[in-house]
Amino acid sequence: MSPKNITTTEIHDDFDVCFTHRLMFVRDVLASDNPMIEELFASASNDEPRPGMIVAVDAGFAAANPGIHDAIRTRFDRDHLPEVREILEVPGGEAAKNDPVVIDRMLEAIERHRIDRRSCVAVFGGGAVIDAVGFASSTAHRGVRLIRFPTTVLGQLDAAIGVKNGVNRFGKKNFVGAFDVPVAVICDERMLETLDDRRWSEGFSEAVKIACLQDATFFDEIEGAADRIRERDPDASRPVIQRCAELHLRHIASGGDPFERREARPLDFGHWSAHRLESMSDFTRSHGEAVAVGVCLDAAYSHFDGRLDRGSLDRIVNTTARLGLPVFDPLLREQGLIDGLEEFREHLGGRLTVTLLEGIGRGVDVHEMDLERLRRSIAHLESNAPA
Amino acid sequence: MSPKNITTTEIHDDFDVCFTHRLMFVRDVLASDNPMIEELFASASNDEPRPGMIVAVDAGFAAANPGIHDAIRTRFDRDHLPEVREILEVPGGEAAKNDPVVIDRMLEAIERHRIDRRSCVAVFGGGAVIDAVGFASSTAHRGVRLIRFPTTVLGQLDAAIGVKNGVNRFGKKNFVGAFDVPVAVICDERMLETLDDRRWSEGFSEAVKIACLQDATFFDEIEGAADRIRERDPDASRPVIQRCAELHLRHIASGGDPFERREARPLDFGHWSAHRLESMSDFTRSHGEAVAVGVCLDAAYSHFDGRLDRGSLDRIVNTTARLGLPVFDPLLREQGLIDGLEEFREHLGGRLTVTLLEGIGRGVDVHEMDLERLRRSIAHLESNAPA
Repeated sequence: MSPKNITTTEIHDDFDVCFTHRLMFVRDVLASDNPMIEELFASASNDEPRPGMIVAVDAGFAAANPGIHDAIRTRFDRDHLPEVREILEVPGGEAAKNDPVVIDRMLEAIERHRIDRRSCVAVFGGGAVIDAVGFASSTAHRGVRLIRFPTTVLGQLDAAIGVKNGVNRFGKKNFVGAFDVPVAVICDERMLETLDDRRWSEGFSEAVKIACLQDATFFDEIEGAADRIRERDPDASRPVIQRCAELHLRHIASGGDPFERREARPLDFGHWSAHRLESMSDFTRSHGEAVAVGVCLDAAYSHFDGRLDRGSLDRIVNTTARLGLPVFDPLLREQGLIDGLEEFREHLGGRLTVTLLEGIGRGVDVHEMDLERLRRSIAHLESNAPA
Repeated sequence: MSPKNITTTEIHDDFDVCFTHRLMFVRDVLASDNPMIEELFASASNDEPRPGMIVAVDAGFAAANPGIHDAIRTRFDRDHLPEVREILEVPGGEAAKNDPVVIDRMLEAIERHRIDRRSCVAVFGGGAVIDAVGFASSTAHRGVRLIRFPTTVLGQLDAAIGVKNGVNRFGKKNFVGAFDVPVAVICDERMLETLDDRRWSEGFSEAVKIACLQDATFFDEIEGAADRIRERDPDASRPVIQRCAELHLRHIASGGDPFERREARPLDFGHWSAHRLESMSDFTRSHGEAVAVGVCLDAAYSHFDGRLDRGSLDRIVNTTARLGLPVFDPLLREQGLIDGLEEFREHLGGRLTVTLLEGIGRGVDVHEMDLERLRRSIAHLESNAPA
């Protein structure tokens, strides 16, 4: 088996793929006189057959908004807009990502209604539903166009802005997924009105997270508005949601690594433990609540690791609590939490990277965590959590 | 439901993602003194744990190369190379893409052996096996690194160069798939030696195709070497395989639309009917053979459509036949073939785009086909096919 004397040839080629990401904030997008839907489809040519559209609706959102099927059908019932061929309801929350049948139902609908790469899929729902529907639409025909209508705070300021989708397999979050850029993300303030208080509050944990990492001024703004946000004053919540979404989008577009082909993922502050808490709680802990606990945990660890002053730690914990979010969970004391560090390392690929704080607005990546300091951080949160 | 007087905000952002594509031609890559494997993994850092590797091997290739498992294990049994954690055999040919179990087995192996985004998957096989394994590896953890070792002519000059993968669902070819760029494509001439003559010849249909579309000089070269290629003289086949692969890669990297986000796919000459022939024949017609027939059909149509002179048509048909490839199939006469035009339109998304020839080396896109001329083209091939 020794190589013959033939020339080995190597050809190298680099290429760029350009993606466009559109993010829109609006109120009452389905109102008949709101022009946003028309603007979105303005580029469609008139001499081609009317494209089709499949709509997936989060069952939880549909239950809270009984007229939503009709509202969608009525709004799109115009010749120059895509034809609604089917509206599917998808179980809300993590069930959407745990049940492989959701993917199959979406693929079957895409096939049955001849949705092609010029047609589109629209999804109205929370982050989990958008993730599952997005995985189906990004793999059918190697990608049909997706329009996301996030219906939760978490979706509007974080989940639906991302260029990732994913579903759970083997009990692991997002074990299977893809990178994909939607045609547009349309955040309708009115769709948040039917959320219950818990679902309302949980979204703001991602705003606290990104402010801690990147933007001290934004943290001040959230801190100042926390009580009014919890009371659901839209004039307080709207700028926070929009600013958070914008920071998220800018990070994707300008961070130099939108598809995470390199190692570090500095937006994952507080997330190694959050992912673990969710699965340890059998998903009774929502993602946003788990992130709130995870952010407080990594902030406390940053303090006991000598990086973050006590005053900043207290501000983070107090603001989180005032938003109506948990800052501690008894599951933090279990061994399973520590195992989450290894699972997170594996998901990242190779080296563990956890982001800590050297001040509010100043994240820094580290590659190991000390288990004794971690235990002290957990004890601190337990004794300082509001009753 | 009329919109309140609030500001609608829109944020637009464009971003580029840079991909690197490496294509290597070699002989005896698994030989102990061949340095290519070391060069491929040279960038791995020494202070990190040894990454893992899952290897998928085409069962047909393994049957023809009984020592292949040992050869792979032996070659990678060095501390500075990834550790082979499992070798899976995958059914060869279209079965790999029709059977969803292949995807599940790959995902399970990736999970069980803790393959992360720093680890990799290697695949040795024909185009179908590479497609199916690639779909699993590109969605696990949203993409683990893939090294492709194509073991067929078709794989080395075409299938394994592409940035697409896919599997069949609902009886439709590539209904589900993704765009993904492998870490490297390693084409080992020696791996072609155990192919039977039919599998050898079929690959060259893609060379005829790309030469017809883009490169009259390359067509002259294939025409001149056709008999020696059929006799499997590596000095005749090697430059054709490498040139074809290079044209394919340049098209992807420089064609401006590697992920086919726009409409036309000018490399699909002869493919609308080829895909259909494959499924109509229950895949007894191989992809390469179906492409040979499809290329001749679209060349004949180009002639009867007044675009291609008779002499050029004859050269294309004769060269195809001399390579040991079919130029006609009785299935062309069935209605199912015409239905393939609609299926192809749907896969493209919206408008039908078929590429025809205005001369050898000069492809042109058209958006409709005349059924009467299509029937004349089929009759012409039937009466001019070699006995």
